[in-house]
Amino acid sequence: MAVTTNTTRPGGRSARVRAAVHRAVEELLAENPAEAVTLPLIATRAGVHPTTVYRRWGSLADLLNDVATSRFSGDIVVPDTGDLREDLERWAIAVATDLADPDVLALMRATLGACPEGGSACVTDRHAQLEAMLERERARGGAAPGVEAAADALLGPLYYRAVFTGQVVEPDWVRGLVRALLT
Amino acid sequence: MAVTTNTTRPGGRSARVRAAVHRAVEELLAENPAEAVTLPLIATRAGVHPTTVYRRWGSLADLLNDVATSRFSGDIVVPDTGDLREDLERWAIAVATDLADPDVLALMRATLGACPEGGSACVTDRHAQLEAMLERERARGGAAPGVEAAADALLGPLYYRAVFTGQVVEPDWVRGLVRALLT
Repeated sequence: MAVTTNTTRPGGRSARVRAAVHRAVEELLAENPAEAVTLPLIATRAGVHPTTVYRRWGSLADLLNDVATSRFSGDIVVPDTGDLREDLERWAIAVATDLADPDVLALMRATLGACPEGGSACVTDRHAQLEAMLERERARGGAAPGVEAAADALLGPLYYRAVFTGQVVEPDWVRGLVRALLT
Repeated sequence: MAVTTNTTRPGGRSARVRAAVHRAVEELLAENPAEAVTLPLIATRAGVHPTTVYRRWGSLADLLNDVATSRFSGDIVVPDTGDLREDLERWAIAVATDLADPDVLALMRATLGACPEGGSACVTDRHAQLEAMLERERARGGAAPGVEAAADALLGPLYYRAVFTGQVVEPDWVRGLVRALLT
């Protein structure tokens, strides 16, 4: 394998382009109505050629899907207190706090608006986190609801309020959701 | 008041334009990705001048908000069986059926994507319908949960699944949500 030190490193450059484009999407959505955020505008903000963006992501919908998948993965630490109720309360309050950020909501709304699979990009990792906490309780020998029932009871109202009603969410209300799920 | 029979009737024409534009929005969103549905395209499909659309609605976001408010109002009949559980089950299954329609979801997603108040356009009438059923139970002397708790428990999971997970919803699952709310 002939590798010279002058070889550009596609992985490195590629990762930098991706980070710049992702940042541009989040910034522009925070500043503008979604309909004003176009691929050429994103390319300009990211300092890359529009062709690069088109070639890599294909469409605005695919780009938003990629940004949302990345933004909503691994961003919330899964608590491990040894107590399921405590874990779920801390985690659900962290999710609620994230959803209270207008920039997060702007990215989520734009992703939902642009692509039919956008919703899944926003919640797949949340389901994995929930499953991890429930599974740990079962491994301790405790009883835990199924992940779908838990998602319905916790993520359902949390996302519904964030996206549809805009109600401000209080920690006590979030604890009430956990209580209703576990009793 | 000098009224001649030749006077154009602005209310009549205005209502026809509104209906044609609303229909054009729903049709185009059912056929195209949301990002392809623009005001000029809507005007062409509705057979009206783009200026008419711009003057009346101002922006695509405002137009989508208007279409969603109209589409999600009065479309579901509120049951009145004399039994709260039965009413809620029938109504929640009707909401679930509506949300299973891909064209309804396309309109909802586009509205969420285009305008920050889009969520409210999709659910304000649902809250009013829920409140009507709960209020009727109270008027009969029965106990009923508050409308917010009912919305969290029923609309939360229903809209969450429709928008975020795309899971197919079964009537038995919907009845389970009502049971969990009322016990």
